[in-house]
Amino acid sequence: MTVKRRPGRRPGSADTRGEILSAARKVFAEKGFDKATVRGIAREAQVDPALVHHYFDTKDRMFTEAMRLPVTPELVIPTLLDGPREELGRRLVTMILTVTAEAETREPMIALIRSAMTNEQAAQMFKEFVTRALLSRVAEELGVPHLRIEAAFAQMFGVLMARYVLRLEPMASADPEELIDLLAPTIQRYFVE
Amino acid sequence: MTVKRRPGRRPGSADTRGEILSAARKVFAEKGFDKATVRGIAREAQVDPALVHHYFDTKDRMFTEAMRLPVTPELVIPTLLDGPREELGRRLVTMILTVTAEAETREPMIALIRSAMTNEQAAQMFKEFVTRALLSRVAEELGVPHLRIEAAFAQMFGVLMARYVLRLEPMASADPEELIDLLAPTIQRYFVE
Repeated sequence: MTVKRRPGRRPGSADTRGEILSAARKVFAEKGFDKATVRGIAREAQVDPALVHHYFDTKDRMFTEAMRLPVTPELVIPTLLDGPREELGRRLVTMILTVTAEAETREPMIALIRSAMTNEQAAQMFKEFVTRALLSRVAEELGVPHLRIEAAFAQMFGVLMARYVLRLEPMASADPEELIDLLAPTIQRYFVE
Repeated sequence: MTVKRRPGRRPGSADTRGEILSAARKVFAEKGFDKATVRGIAREAQVDPALVHHYFDTKDRMFTEAMRLPVTPELVIPTLLDGPREELGRRLVTMILTVTAEAETREPMIALIRSAMTNEQAAQMFKEFVTRALLSRVAEELGVPHLRIEAAFAQMFGVLMARYVLRLEPMASADPEELIDLLAPTIQRYFVE
């Protein structure tokens, strides 16, 4: 089967999007999430910044796609806010376990975490993303102290490590519903107490 | 300054202890914690098993020293059992944060965890040790379901990663007392509820 291209539409080369992501990875690695700019990434990719915006609405989304992080602020924040506050812990735990249940979305994230454990630059990127794009925003939206958000992050990070990297049993094979019942009250207490 | 050796006492070479540890690292790496035996380690070190017992009371202790893990069953289990059950969470969190506060005891453990993230053999060893020597025994002593012990492990593992590897702020600089107040109820709930 051959793929026909529409002749009139060609924003840059055929793989402009891939080239922007590749430039983004390089700039994020060099500067970290916080200091990297759309303008700097456009310069690295030798395209107009408007074209970067055409493919990726925000710097977050570009980072997410460059790193293939399945847990993004665009997903987390509405999940947290959409529903009664007394079920916030359950919503967050359910969302994290659901998103990481698929190998396709989980594995690139595990790869980044592994890199962050052994490579200072990857650690810096992971840390800046987690802090500034995820935890700080959640803290701000919900008015929860940063230390409590980080305790919740630590709980879920540890669970993903135990379940998918160390594969501790019974954690690795546990039914998601059982895990949700066990973990939701912990997250709820950090966020709401 | 010269060191005099007592002439009559020479249990193997001058660094027999070091040679046993070196053999232990090799055997643990090959077989994992569970399948490695004192006898096999003695054979690898070309010494009598009795000599291994002379230096290291138990296989756990040998593993701990070979890996330099600061959190050992000999430390954890008495800490958990010694005191009222309603303060168990606080005792465990305090113990873990105290032991890991010293760079000298913390760093070799972090090194093993880093290895476990990227090396399948190190992961196997860390996992077997954590499961069989630590978590299973705590579960047995306290009659707590394994999944709950692993949830507690995941919380504290995540905290150590956030505080010492990712160095997330404010977690990295948080006062131990503040962390204990925040985390103790989580561990208490997993162990006692």
